[in-house]
This record gives sequence, structure tokens and C-alpha cells, in this order.
Amino acid sequence: MAYELYYWDGIQGRGEFVRLALEEAGADYIDITRQPGRGTGAMFAVMESESEPHVPFAPPFLKDGDLIIPHVANILFYLGPKLGLAPDDEGLRYVVNGLQLTVTDFVAEVHDTHHPIDTSLYYEDQKEEAKARSAAFIRERIPKFLGYFERVLRQNPEGPDHMVGNALTYVDLSLFQVIEGLTYAFPKAMANCKAEYPGLLALRDAVTKRPNIARYLASPRRLAFNEEGIFRHYPELDSAE
Amino acid sequence: MAYELYYWDGIQGRGEFVRLALEEAGADYIDITRQPGRGTGAMFAVMESESEPHVPFAPPFLKDGDLIIPHVANILFYLGPKLGLAPDDEGLRYVVNGLQLTVTDFVAEVHDTHHPIDTSLYYEDQKEEAKARSAAFIRERIPKFLGYFERVLRQNPEGPDHMVGNALTYVDLSLFQVIEGLTYAFPKAMANCKAEYPGLLALRDAVTKRPNIARYLASPRRLAFNEEGIFRHYPELDSAE
Repeated sequence: MAYELYYWDGIQGRGEFVRLALEEAGADYIDITRQPGRGTGAMFAVMESESEPHVPFAPPFLKDGDLIIPHVANILFYLGPKLGLAPDDEGLRYVVNGLQLTVTDFVAEVHDTHHPIDTSLYYEDQKEEAKARSAAFIRERIPKFLGYFERVLRQNPEGPDHMVGNALTYVDLSLFQVIEGLTYAFPKAMANCKAEYPGLLALRDAVTKRPNIARYLASPRRLAFNEEGIFRHYPELDSAE
Repeated sequence: MAYELYYWDGIQGRGEFVRLALEEAGADYIDITRQPGRGTGAMFAVMESESEPHVPFAPPFLKDGDLIIPHVANILFYLGPKLGLAPDDEGLRYVVNGLQLTVTDFVAEVHDTHHPIDTSLYYEDQKEEAKARSAAFIRERIPKFLGYFERVLRQNPEGPDHMVGNALTYVDLSLFQVIEGLTYAFPKAMANCKAEYPGLLALRDAVTKRPNIARYLASPRRLAFNEEGIFRHYPELDSAE
């Protein structure tokens, strides 16, 4: 039975981290809200159910038969071994999950660069605070997070091609997405600092060239980044340097 | 061998969600930075290691032998079955993890009520923005998150005593901590809304009375809430109503 992914249509957003894993593995999945005649109504029907015992708080969530699994890192922890994108060693799976949760935290901070005060308001209603938060994000948080991920690659005893072990895992795919997203949202800031992250850039390039990923990126299933998603390009928030 | 918990000394913080599970289970653990002669230096030694392959981004992290596991939800996912605080059904473990990750998101938003702009600055340097963010948090986010958790209790086919299934899991303990923390940080706002969450308050009370938890709460190991932690009481951020 095909996996069912439930997420907003029209954006890459958090759903994209799951899509990349499913696409790399060539898994059979249905992106429910993008199906003709379905739309986000199918997603809200699950979220607003008054009888479903395991109702999710927010998208994305995955349905595998009767099981409903919410949260990107949780979905990937569940799918990883099934898709061949997790280590065989069970202890290392918690290491990968720990890295994925650090990606989750970073992505939440990316979101807050354009929504520092109130997620229910528009960006335009918190633009001045967004400028302050983005300046701090570029100055403090990008170096802290990317510096950390670069260090994990460098300290991998199996070599710097992968975050954990000597084979691709889903967190490698997620870091591809993080680098792509940051480069879209903050092109000047990233141009200023990219020399400091050679391992991450090499990982990004290697993922781009994987046949299933290359096919996916060239397909209409891969939406373009836009200003409705997590990674948004507002020139006034990018580095002035 | 005893589990080793690494977290800041002096605050409950995120480490408290792990402590509650270890204490409830009566597990053998060492709160490393609170040991005489250790302190946070022992924590930084792991985090700043240039040879450790699985270096954590931030505390808390758990050491179990050679395995280093970072992030609260990840630690609890790992410990849950070992401590008898996770469902026997493997699918349901992902349901519990999904709920724990929703707690994680909520706790991050609690933190941002006093640090909406820059985590590296003091609260006093972002007080006006903190007022705006806290107002939105009280108006929009507390009802959204607590309303969701209340609904999960209500829709549990096994009854509203537990979040998942018919026995205590670690996410029940985490929700105890969330209610305690919110009541400390935002007493007026919580007094205004608590009638809407009878299930969560009953769960909080039931957890308080569990023998191992009651013993822990009365011990010096349970630090008081304070203004260095996640849940901080700044009267000017609490509801004006």
C-alpha cells in the first residue's frame, strides 16, 4: 500500500524533507493534497476528526495504513529503515534522529526570521522585528548551526561524505535542503560564508547528482521556493555586507 | 551501568523532561553537572570534543555507555521502552513521539516569549518585543496547544487518564511539567483559562501523586522554577486581564 503524505499544497515547506527521502528511495507514495479533487480538505478532515484517536497537531503527517505519524523527524525515523536511508546499527539511528532534530530546530529559527512576533500575522506586520531577528540569525545562528553540521562531517570516522556512517541517510538529504533553502533566502549572507562549509557544499552537490534526486528536482513535483514557505527571500532581511 | 544525563545545573529547563522519566522509573542515573567536582565543564568537554564522532549540538544529552543521545524527545524515545514508559505496540511509540515533538515545539515557543529577537541577548534588551510575543502566545498559542492536548486525552479510546493507551507514558510526565511551568510563568493567564482543560489538570494532579514523582518533587533534586530557565515569571508578560 502506498504511503500517504499530508501537507500543504503550493510550498516545499517542512513536507519537502519527507518528499526527498521518499523520492530518493523511489517509494510508492501519494502527496494527498496535490491529487485532483482532494486538496487541503483531505488534510483537515484528518486533523479535525473528533473520533480519530491519534490526531496530528499539524502537517506534515504520514499515513501508513491505519497509523498516523506526525512531525518530520518522527516520519523520517519511522521511514528511514524501511527506505534504506537509516543505519543498520540501532544505536546510530538515534544519532541520526538527534541530527535531524537539530535540523528541525534550525528550520524553526529560519521560519522565525520572517515571523518573530506572531505566526498568525503577516510578515509585513512584523517587518522591523524581522529585520532585527534576521540580523541576529545571520550573525549568530547560521555560523552556529552550519559550523556544527560541518564539524559533524569532519569528525565522521568514516569520512566526510556523509553525516553518519559511510552511506547516505535521510539527514544527508535534509542538509541538502537546508543549504538550498538558505541559499535561496539569504543569497548574500550565504555567499559571504560558504567558503567556511566545504563539506556541506560537497554534500549538497553530491545529493543533487543522485539519479532519483536529479529526476525529482527536474520534475513538476519539485515546487520552486516561494514566499509562502519556510525559506523566503526578502532582500531587506538578507545581509547588507 | 548508570545513565549519565548532561544538562545545565541550576535550572529545570529541558533536562527536566528527562529527569521526570528517570525518576518515575526509579532508574539509576547521574546528573553529571550537579556532581561535586564536575560542573558544566564535563558537559562542554563532550560538546567541544574534536574527536567524538557523535558530538551533540546542545544539552540535554544522555550517555548510555558509548552512545551519546541528544534532544529531549530522542532521549525519551530511546529510554521509554527501557523504563517501562512507552507502549508495547511499536506503532504507538511513534504516536507518543509525535506528541512529545509537539511538546518540544510548544516549549520552544515558551522560550521565545522572553527571547523573541535574539537568544544571545538578555531579556531586558528585548522586553518590548517580548510583551508583544507573549500577548500573542497567551491569546493564540496556549489555547491552540493545550486545546489540542486536551482533545487527545478526550479522544483516547482507552479513556482520558493518559495521552496514549491505558498506561502512563513519558509524554504524560512531560504534560505535567508543561502545566506546572505555564502556571508558574503565566499565573493570571492560566487562572483565566484552566477550566477549559479539565483533562490536563486531572493528569497533572495524578502525576503529582505518583509515589516516585512525589518523592522527587519533595527532594533537593527538584530545583524550583526560576528566571534562568525556560518557564520564567515576568509579571509584565502575563495576561493583564
